[in-house]
This record gives sequence, C-alpha cells and structure tokens, in this order.
Amino acid sequence: MRTSIATVCLSGTLAEKLRSASDAGFQGVEIFEQDLTVSPHSPEQIRERAEQLGLTIELFQPFRDFEGVEQELFRKNLRRLEAKFQLMQRLGCKMILLCSNVATATINDDEVVAQQLNEAGKLAERYDMWIAYEALAWGKFVNTFRHSYDIVMKAAHRRIGVCLDSFHILSRNDDPAGIAELDADKIFFVQLADAPRKDMNLLDWSRHSRVFPGEGELNLPKFVSYLKKYSGPLSLEIFNDSFREADALRTAIDGQRSLRWVADQAGLCRLPDAPQSLAYNFVELKTGNVGEVSKILHQLGFRLGGYHRRKTDFQVWRAGEITVVVQDLGPNGAPAELTALGISVNSSEGAIQRARQLGVRQVERSEEEGEIRLPAVYAPDGTEIYFCDSGHKWLSEFHAVQKAEPSILTGIDHVTLAQPWHRLDEARLFFTSLLGLEASPVEQVPTPAGLVTSQSMEGGIRLALNVAPEASEQGDFLVASYPEHLTFNTDNAIECARQCRSRGLNILEIPDNYYDDLTARYDLPEKFINTYRDLNLLYDRDDQGEYLHFYTENFGDSGNIYVEIAQRINGYRGYGWANSAVRLAAQYRVLRDHTRGIPT
Amino acid sequence: MRTSIATVCLSGTLAEKLRSASDAGFQGVEIFEQDLTVSPHSPEQIRERAEQLGLTIELFQPFRDFEGVEQELFRKNLRRLEAKFQLMQRLGCKMILLCSNVATATINDDEVVAQQLNEAGKLAERYDMWIAYEALAWGKFVNTFRHSYDIVMKAAHRRIGVCLDSFHILSRNDDPAGIAELDADKIFFVQLADAPRKDMNLLDWSRHSRVFPGEGELNLPKFVSYLKKYSGPLSLEIFNDSFREADALRTAIDGQRSLRWVADQAGLCRLPDAPQSLAYNFVELKTGNVGEVSKILHQLGFRLGGYHRRKTDFQVWRAGEITVVVQDLGPNGAPAELTALGISVNSSEGAIQRARQLGVRQVERSEEEGEIRLPAVYAPDGTEIYFCDSGHKWLSEFHAVQKAEPSILTGIDHVTLAQPWHRLDEARLFFTSLLGLEASPVEQVPTPAGLVTSQSMEGGIRLALNVAPEASEQGDFLVASYPEHLTFNTDNAIECARQCRSRGLNILEIPDNYYDDLTARYDLPEKFINTYRDLNLLYDRDDQGEYLHFYTENFGDSGNIYVEIAQRINGYRGYGWANSAVRLAAQYRVLRDHTRGIPT
Repeated sequence: MRTSIATVCLSGTLAEKLRSASDAGFQGVEIFEQDLTVSPHSPEQIRERAEQLGLTIELFQPFRDFEGVEQELFRKNLRRLEAKFQLMQRLGCKMILLCSNVATATINDDEVVAQQLNEAGKLAERYDMWIAYEALAWGKFVNTFRHSYDIVMKAAHRRIGVCLDSFHILSRNDDPAGIAELDADKIFFVQLADAPRKDMNLLDWSRHSRVFPGEGELNLPKFVSYLKKYSGPLSLEIFNDSFREADALRTAIDGQRSLRWVADQAGLCRLPDAPQSLAYNFVELKTGNVGEVSKILHQLGFRLGGYHRRKTDFQVWRAGEITVVVQDLGPNGAPAELTALGISVNSSEGAIQRARQLGVRQVERSEEEGEIRLPAVYAPDGTEIYFCDSGHKWLSEFHAVQKAEPSILTGIDHVTLAQPWHRLDEARLFFTSLLGLEASPVEQVPTPAGLVTSQSMEGGIRLALNVAPEASEQGDFLVASYPEHLTFNTDNAIECARQCRSRGLNILEIPDNYYDDLTARYDLPEKFINTYRDLNLLYDRDDQGEYLHFYTENFGDSGNIYVEIAQRINGYRGYGWANSAVRLAAQYRVLRDHTRGIPT
Repeated sequence: MRTSIATVCLSGTLAEKLRSASDAGFQGVEIFEQDLTVSPHSPEQIRERAEQLGLTIELFQPFRDFEGVEQELFRKNLRRLEAKFQLMQRLGCKMILLCSNVATATINDDEVVAQQLNEAGKLAERYDMWIAYEALAWGKFVNTFRHSYDIVMKAAHRRIGVCLDSFHILSRNDDPAGIAELDADKIFFVQLADAPRKDMNLLDWSRHSRVFPGEGELNLPKFVSYLKKYSGPLSLEIFNDSFREADALRTAIDGQRSLRWVADQAGLCRLPDAPQSLAYNFVELKTGNVGEVSKILHQLGFRLGGYHRRKTDFQVWRAGEITVVVQDLGPNGAPAELTALGISVNSSEGAIQRARQLGVRQVERSEEEGEIRLPAVYAPDGTEIYFCDSGHKWLSEFHAVQKAEPSILTGIDHVTLAQPWHRLDEARLFFTSLLGLEASPVEQVPTPAGLVTSQSMEGGIRLALNVAPEASEQGDFLVASYPEHLTFNTDNAIECARQCRSRGLNILEIPDNYYDDLTARYDLPEKFINTYRDLNLLYDRDDQGEYLHFYTENFGDSGNIYVEIAQRINGYRGYGWANSAVRLAAQYRVLRDHTRGIPT
C-alpha cells in the first residue's frame, strides 16, 4: 500500500511539510498549489527536495472551474491548464486534480462536458500528464462520483480518469458500494478524509472540520474496502483549522497511523491483532509530596504494600484488587501527576508489535535479570501505557510491607486523562487503533472558565479524555484545576463515603442548591437526598440504572489530580456527566479560595 | 430603558457574574438555573447580593418541555413548575421563562396547549408569578412568535404573556414587523441576541455562536424598532463559547455598549451623534530603538519634522500630508509598537460625549496652558484614539526641525490593528458604535502557522482588524511576526519602490513562484510582471480596479510593526487580501531565518 498526504494537511513552509511527510513514513505527497506559490523554492528545487526525501509528487491540486463553459472561456481555461502542465513538468508531477466546476459552469450537458474533458485529455497527452476528475459534493452540475465517472467514460480518453474523495461521497450519504463496480483502471486517485457529522452546509464543513480516517464519524473502513482493485496511493486530504496550527511532524505521524489502521480495518493489509481481554492492572502516580499522597490514599482505604527492591523510590499501594504505584520524587513539593497506566492484555508482545506498526513510540526501559519485562508505549499526551500479560507477578519485585486486605473498593472504573488542545482526535485514534477502544459521542460541559470537552472510550477498560479551552482568560483555573482523575468502584458509595470521612478525607463539597434541584428532578425519597447532602454524594440516572459518586478535593493546593469513588447500580453506563458542571464549579471555587481569597 | 443580562453570558461563579453585571451598569439580570444550581450561595443569599448590587432579578430561566403533553405528564410538569415557583420566591424573582416544548410534546393542538398554559397561569397567580412563553426556533409544534402569541391569547390568563427573542425570530428569517401589531402588554419579556449568519442547524448555531447586538449579521436595530410600546427591560441572552472563557467584566461592558447602541439605532433613546468627516490626522509609534525607526522612516521618504517642546521624547516625522509621531523610549531596544491613532473629526467634544455614553474608557491627559487639547479614548486592544478637530494645529507644540516637502506618498490608506483572541466582535462593535464604521465580511487567510482572521471596516477612514490563532503550536511566529501595520498611499508604487530601494529599504522579498502564478492568472504584459518581480511588488484586481503594493520587512528582528505602500488604481476597493498568504509566508520565513537558521 502506497501512502500519500496533501501538503495542505500540514503546517509550516512547503520544505518543512515535505520533511515531515517523509519523516512520518509517507511515500508520496499531493502538492497544494498555494503552498508552492508562497514558497521561495522553485519547482525544480522542490522536485529535488522531494527526491532526496524519497517522496513521489503524486498529484498537483486543485485545478478549478474548467468544464461546462462556453467556447471562449473554455479556450482560456485550456491555456490555464497548459500553464499548469508546464509547471508540473518542472515539478516532476504527472497527475493533476480537476475539481468539478463550482463557479463558472453554464452548460449542464454531459456530452459537452465529456467533449471538453476529451480535449483536456489531448492536451495532457502532449505533456504526458494525467487528469483525475473529482466530483465536489457542491459541484454545480457534477457532484456525485457516479456522475463524474459517467462523464469520464464518455470522454473516452486514456488520460482522463476519476479521483474519489471519501468526504465528497460520504458527506452526501451516497452509497460507496458502487465504487466496487467501477473500472478500477479509471480510478486515477483516491483521497481519504473523515469528519465529525455536522448539520451544516457541505462546503464550510469540508473546509474546516475534516479529520484523519478513524477520527470522525464517517465510515472510512467500509469506503476503503471497496478499493481492493485500485492500485494507486491512498492519500490524505484534510482541511482542518487545528491541523494548520499544529506541529507538522506530529500531525503527519497521526495521519500515517490513520492510513495503516483504516487499511487493516478494510482488509487491504494486515496489522498484528489488537490486544484482547483488557483490564486495568495498575495506575502510577509521581509526586514531590509523597506525604500528602500517602495520607489521601490511606484515607481512601489503601495500605502501603511495599517498596521496589531496586528502585526504592517506587512504592505500591493496595486496596483489595486495586494497585496504585507511587513514585516518590523527593521533597520538592511538586504536585501529584498521573504518569502511567498498566493494562492487562492477552499478549504484551502482540500489543507491542501492533504499536510498532502504528508508529507508536516505545518507552525505553531496562529490566535487570530476574525482573518481569513490562513493555510500554507513550500515549499522545505522554502517559506511559504498560502491557501486563502475567497478572501482578511484577509485584514480586517489591519488598512486601503490608498484605492486601479485602476492601470496600472493588476496582478501577475509569481513568480520565487531560489532553492538550488540538489533540483529542489524535488521542481518540491512538486508543482506537492500538487498543480497539470504541468512542462515545463527545460531551461538552460548562465550567466557570469555558466549555470542557469530554470523550469516553470503552472496550474492556473505560477511559475518558478531557480537553479544556486553551485560550480561556481564566486559564489558571483550567490549567491548574482541570485535572486528571482516577475513579474507583465500590458496591456501597454511602458506606465508603462515611469511612473516608471518618478517616479525615476532604470530600469535595457540593452545594445545597444541587440537592434542591435533585429533589425537583427525581422522585427520590427525602431521606436519600438528605444522606447524599450530608455526604456530598452526587446522583445520576440513565435508562438502565443509577450512579452514586463523590470526589476528593484536588491533591494539593493546585493539584492536578483527584479521585472519584463511584457505585454503578443496575448497569448504569454513563460517567455522571450531568454532574460534571457541579464538580467543576466546586473545584473552581476551591482554587479561587486558595489563590485569591473567597470570591465576592 | 432598563437593561438586563442573562448570567449565562458571563464567566465565573454566579456571585462574580452579578458583580460584573452591576459594575457594567446593568439594572437587571436573568438567572440561568444551572448557574444557581452549582452556586454555594442559597437563593436567599443571591437575592441579597443582587439587592446590594442594585440589580433586579428580572427572569428565572429556562423552564422546558412543559406543554402539549398527556395529562399524567402534565401533572408532573405542574409539580416541577411549582417547585421552581417556590425557588423563585426565595430568589425574589417574579417571572419565569417557559420555552416551547422541544422534547416531550405529543399533542399538536392549540386548544390543549392554551388550556395547559391557563392552568400554569392559575398556579402562577397563587404564587404571584408571571410566565413568559417563548417560541424556540426549533420548538416541536410551536416555533414562531406568532404561534406563541396566538396560544397566549387563547390561554387568556393575565399571568401568561410572551417572551420575544430576536435570535429565534431573525434566525428563521421571520419578519419582525408583526411585533408592532401585538398587544404590548402581552409582551412580558424581550431577549436580544445577534449572530453571524451560518448555514447550519438552528440549535447548534444558537448554542455556540450568538453575539451581542451589532456584533453579528442579524438586523437588531430593526427588530428593536418594533418594541416602542414595550416597557420591560431589554435583556441580553448570549450563548457563546468564547464569552464563557472571557473576562466577565469586560464582556459585560461590551454588552452594555451593545444595548445602548442598538437602542439609539432603533430610535428608543438617543446617543450624542457619531463624529463626522473622519480622516487620519496622525499615527503614533513608540520604540526603544529610535535609530532603526528613524532609518526606516527616512528610507520611506519621511523627514524629521520636529521635537515636542515639553515632552522631548516625542518626535514628529512627515511625508507630504502624512504625520507620524514617534515616542523615543530610550535605548532599551524594545521593538516599535503602534500606540495611537489621531482621527480628524467635526467635533472632538461630541465624540467624547458619545464615547462616555458608550462606556468607553478615556485616556487621562494633562495639557499645559497654551497646548491644544486632544481628547482620547482607549480602543479594546489598548490603542489610544485621539480626536482632532482643528487640523494639525497641535504641531505648533513641536520645535520645527525640517519643513514638510511634497512627497510621493499621498496619505494614510489604512491601519491594521492586531486583536486579542476572543475580541474581534468587541472591537468591531467598538468602532461601529463609536465612529460609525461599517464592517465588511470577515476573511480568513492561511499562514504556515494557522488561519488569520481579517476584518476591514470603513467610513471616512479605513481600518483592518486581524486575529491570529491563539493556540498555534507555532505561536512564536504568530505572536512575534503577525504584526500591526500602516499602509501609506502613493500614486506611483513602482517609482516609490525604486526610490525606497535606492535609499536602502529592505523590501519584503516575494517568491518567484508568485509571479509565475500571476502570469497564469492574469493577462498582464510580461514587462509589467518583470517590473513587479524586480521590485517585489504585489498585484491584485477587483471588478473596479487594481491594487499595486509592497511591504517593508518587520521593524527589527522580531518587530511587531511593518509598513505597506499601496497604489489604488481606478477605485479598487479591497485590501490586497489575495496576497496576504504570500506576505505571511514570507514574514514567517524571515522570522525563522532569524531565530532558527534557514529552514530545511
């Protein structure tokens, strides 16, 4: 499978874009004309640069508003096309993308359009060029791949074929199954783009919100599965406002991953199997205030299990089946941070193989003889993901201090990771492609400093990804206080809250108004509400069951981690997001109280 | 005129929102229920706080999915409503917003709906409450103000009236003229919101993109002009993702300004007249590198005109009719910055009166005896705007050094101000409301580090506002190199460029590829293109005429100001935006070359 990427997907100068595409493992690029126009490098220099980098210039694009016009304009358009062919010769590119006419078409007659394409074909023949005709979803007369294909067949020139773009086809809800019926030799080029579903006009949707395959809501695997006879490159063409601002190499690596994933899903090639039987094995924090973390873990009902024999700065804490590793950074006061997730899998070796094929960076570790090998990779946000295929054998490396005891805490329900701005799509694809997790629809939660975006993913383990608004003028709250968190399960949230409180835990205080509203919303017995109010428990309900939960305050004054304890009743499937706004407002107040005194 | 604002417009806690609304001069607020639910203050405390701040709680909102339902659900809904009336009693609020049913309505029968509203009215009577029924634009059965009014008339209860929301009416292109025909006593409440026109579903458009009156593309002045018999408050209800992140007081001041402007435009009250006969009188820079600025001004053809007699750090530079004031900050090397615009007006006193009424902050200045009074205000980005109503008399305060000479430069074409993220709408309304400038549609320009948004405004003077993406991972470019600029006119750009070059000016270098593309795009004689290429001139064309222009490099290594020289031919009306991407890519390269060496 040959992979290609349009330069418009990447930030920087044209030279920088080429370098990033090559470094990420692409074999080809589409040159977006504007990128060349603003470049100080001549077409010949760009050609040489691409060759040095091992890149083929697969396509020059876009050429617009050519066909379906009166004769005089058509002559002008042919001259325009010829100028581009001359430019492409200098560039060493053999194929041009011809978009169906949007602005200037006046003749809605396939015979005329085919005849004009045939003339373009003759010109292409003279320059040894190829023309890929693409139906834009908002083309004036030609806007379906069927229609563009029919015209190409009528044009009957070997230099004329179609370009298929997944966005233009799937955004209109056209059935891509028809692709399999086309003459594959007439499919000159394929562009792939996914997108979140939006109820808005196609042009604006396309120009700003495309994402890589697997990052949106269109069915790219199905689309690609109809391309088994196509032999050209799969090329990414993503118009996305965030991509334009993002680090180019990082974007390119994400794009390369998306192509490998979608080709595997579509059966075009084969990745090592995704790991099976996922479960949380451990979570790891590091802290420069181990006293405080120890206190909170103790208050939650954890006991210190032991110290690592060799790396004595690592402690292990246990509550029933839950294992938390704590790295003691020494007394520098740095707040606690979530650094690693251990995930039990059927085969750690298979997981690492797959990660490698997906271009995921591995964590370099050195085990000493007799120590268990736990291979690990970096998630896009830097969190280390360890694969464990032998249960908790690795605990044997720890000097035991206290034995694990039965606990009111029954497991790790989910982990919430804060994602950098711009990077939710990348993170989602990472967890989908590597671990096979499935994403739920995105939620937006109002906070006193802006909307927070939340994305849950499931597949054996539950994971939530949160993104805070980058540009908030109240950024101190969102940076410092929109923290990552761990959610532990219990079968008895009320008893658990009581025990925690008796051990002195600071439970996040929930306002009375919340309980008044709860009374108005649900037919809950008053004594229940009073218990919740007393213990600062929050309540949610879905069509299956109920969710009863409470939060610790953030670790430390401006800590970036906190813990949630949750009881799922009768198969409740959510994450208590109806209550997230209440939590965030409470966290905001705690931070303000610490940093500015009580707000007026 | 009473003004009010919904708490959902403002960031922070409910207490912080109230404080900001009061500080900005509002008389009332709408309490958005969620803001109360997450607040640690009881309804009684909020009531007291509002009273202390001189705020009336005009409305409690929203109450949803009440009417058009079967009897059993209706009974439940009445109980829900009663709980809210009890809450409102504690809050000291007398009116609730009832939105037309979106989710649960099953009975599409006005008689039934009116009957159910009548029952709600009876309940309201018992609690001494009022119900304002609002047709949401996406209401299931009721989605026009006419329909909601008809139902209210059928309900025939004195406690039931309508709430009119400009967004719900104008977004659907309903004609607001019908408002004038309604019984004004039955208009219980009016909410105002503007929005940019978007071709997307109404709900998403409404939830994320509303802006204050005058900041969008709906005709709010016309809407408000139909409310002459309405005696309640004009209340802002803006759902906007950026507002949620912005400083609350600043947002509130902006909102208060929008109401005063729209009421004046609609003829409901009267502001002092906007200043007339606008023209640029001067521009002012400050710099810690006066040597460099002097060099560039000299290369552009300016001559040092004199020093201020008292404030000797102020110099004046002149070229023909153009006056540039330069403040010398001493040899600290700080790059040049654009600090002030002098604008000739018919009445500086009138302008200041209007500014005061619009809540604009004045610049505190102290003139000594015999000095000309130039009153000034701060634009939202901190630029000082001076009003000059006696030509250049103020120049008499300067010791003359050299006389002004005729120049190839003929005037100030426009000034481009960089706006902070989030703040374009506020800036646009500022210049519209204070100076009567008219905004053109917004443009977006691709750069190597993200999209830049450009907004031009005209009305005697031309002004452009630019916003760079805040969250770019290549932020160093956008912060340092997306600068403000001055555009001077000339009648002969070619000769001007030659003169500047002969004086050693660093003209921004434009790539060859640009000129190749120009050849393909336009039928320009080759010798013209060659001259442009030689001099780094850029070319644009609109349906009226042509634009020939060139740029200086940024002042200093990472300067945040540069100069454009432009020749408008035959009434060209644009700003050369077709060439902005070329300029930005060139500026990006210059910065990279300075900071990182030549990119690979």
